[in-house]
Amino acid sequence: MTSDAPTRAYRRLSVEERRSQLLESALTLFAHRAPEEVSLDDVAEAAGVSRPLVYRYFPGGKQQLYEAALRSAADELRGCFAEPPQGPLIERLGRALDRYLSFVGEHDAGFSALLQGGSVVETSRTTAIVDGVRRAAAEHIMRHLDVEEPGPRLLMTVRMWITAVEAASLIWLDQDKRPPLDELRDGLVDHFVAGLAVTAGRDEQTAAVVRSALALETPDGPVASLARRVLPVVADAAHLL
Amino acid sequence: MTSDAPTRAYRRLSVEERRSQLLESALTLFAHRAPEEVSLDDVAEAAGVSRPLVYRYFPGGKQQLYEAALRSAADELRGCFAEPPQGPLIERLGRALDRYLSFVGEHDAGFSALLQGGSVVETSRTTAIVDGVRRAAAEHIMRHLDVEEPGPRLLMTVRMWITAVEAASLIWLDQDKRPPLDELRDGLVDHFVAGLAVTAGRDEQTAAVVRSALALETPDGPVASLARRVLPVVADAAHLL
Repeated sequence: MTSDAPTRAYRRLSVEERRSQLLESALTLFAHRAPEEVSLDDVAEAAGVSRPLVYRYFPGGKQQLYEAALRSAADELRGCFAEPPQGPLIERLGRALDRYLSFVGEHDAGFSALLQGGSVVETSRTTAIVDGVRRAAAEHIMRHLDVEEPGPRLLMTVRMWITAVEAASLIWLDQDKRPPLDELRDGLVDHFVAGLAVTAGRDEQTAAVVRSALALETPDGPVASLARRVLPVVADAAHLL
Repeated sequence: MTSDAPTRAYRRLSVEERRSQLLESALTLFAHRAPEEVSLDDVAEAAGVSRPLVYRYFPGGKQQLYEAALRSAADELRGCFAEPPQGPLIERLGRALDRYLSFVGEHDAGFSALLQGGSVVETSRTTAIVDGVRRAAAEHIMRHLDVEEPGPRLLMTVRMWITAVEAASLIWLDQDKRPPLDELRDGLVDHFVAGLAVTAGRDEQTAAVVRSALALETPDGPVASLARRVLPVVADAAHLL
């Protein structure tokens, strides 16, 4: 209870403004605590309004607020993926990933609770919202790779990488955000390049994508740097060829 | 109702035998249907017993049966990972993965429902069982890589791959088990090699692991075959070095 809470409660807000304000308070709470640890009273207090007012806007209570907050977070995440289709591909991916990881870092506990499963607020609707973000990520990547109809091998490779990014994000949060975001991002970009390269060995569509992507790279770009780091390690395997 | 069901119900089984029988019936049902689509009546009918008898053994009803079946499936999955620590590393991984994917193929709908989340039977306990299997997989891999104390980069790489395998398994089931299991397995093994190689470029511990693993490989093994397939695709990138 802060002394200015009652004052704020009397501010005249339009229905839309009030709804946004409640949603924003809820999102802030759900971002840093497990949904189990957020009550409607917490949301009311954070927004400086009464509990009945929260119910008036969200008659479904906490579940409805959680889903609305999740939808708003999903929209924000989709925004992170937007990137102009110019310049070397892998650098575009790095910038999008940078925004994604910043978002993850800013919504730590909520992100973990959401993706780790087993939460009381998890329903087929929340799962669908999360899947929608994953699908959007895959679509963005395909657009940048200039692939209109991805075959099953390319699609599986991209979707595997997206899941691996989620797993890495959870581990990163669990390790108190170590290594630093930059290093995590660069490592994930490397994994993307490696995953595509490996699938390219079995799939002509992916091979064409890799060739186009490599043609856009420069000697001071991330792929060249990756190659320079990895080649000395695998050089010992020359006996295999 | 089959005509021999009542007869089977009267067979004298020990408590342990009866429990196993009920569990087995439940596991078969949960393997091929979403948990929402399995009722206690289904389990009773499949086991040829009465519904009250099922309740006597599993007073917690469907939730308890589901968790018990999940625990038994998790034990079976852990068994898939066991592999003698001899011979080329990557072939050991291929054999373990082969057993894992066969298990996934035999428990299709249940595996999907479990990992896709949002199910009514999902609780923090079921999540913990699934996480236990993931942890066991990572421990097996570390043991084969001969690493006693994995650093954060190696551990993250292995855990990312395990998650990517799960994602690939779900996509595979969703695509009616295409490509064939062999091709999926080989592709996943390739991804493991590529993931380690990429992390080796940034992490000395992983580099040492990769060098040891490569030393065990032969020119007709999976890593040599991977290198022969990928090198022609990335050869165009010579301008980057």
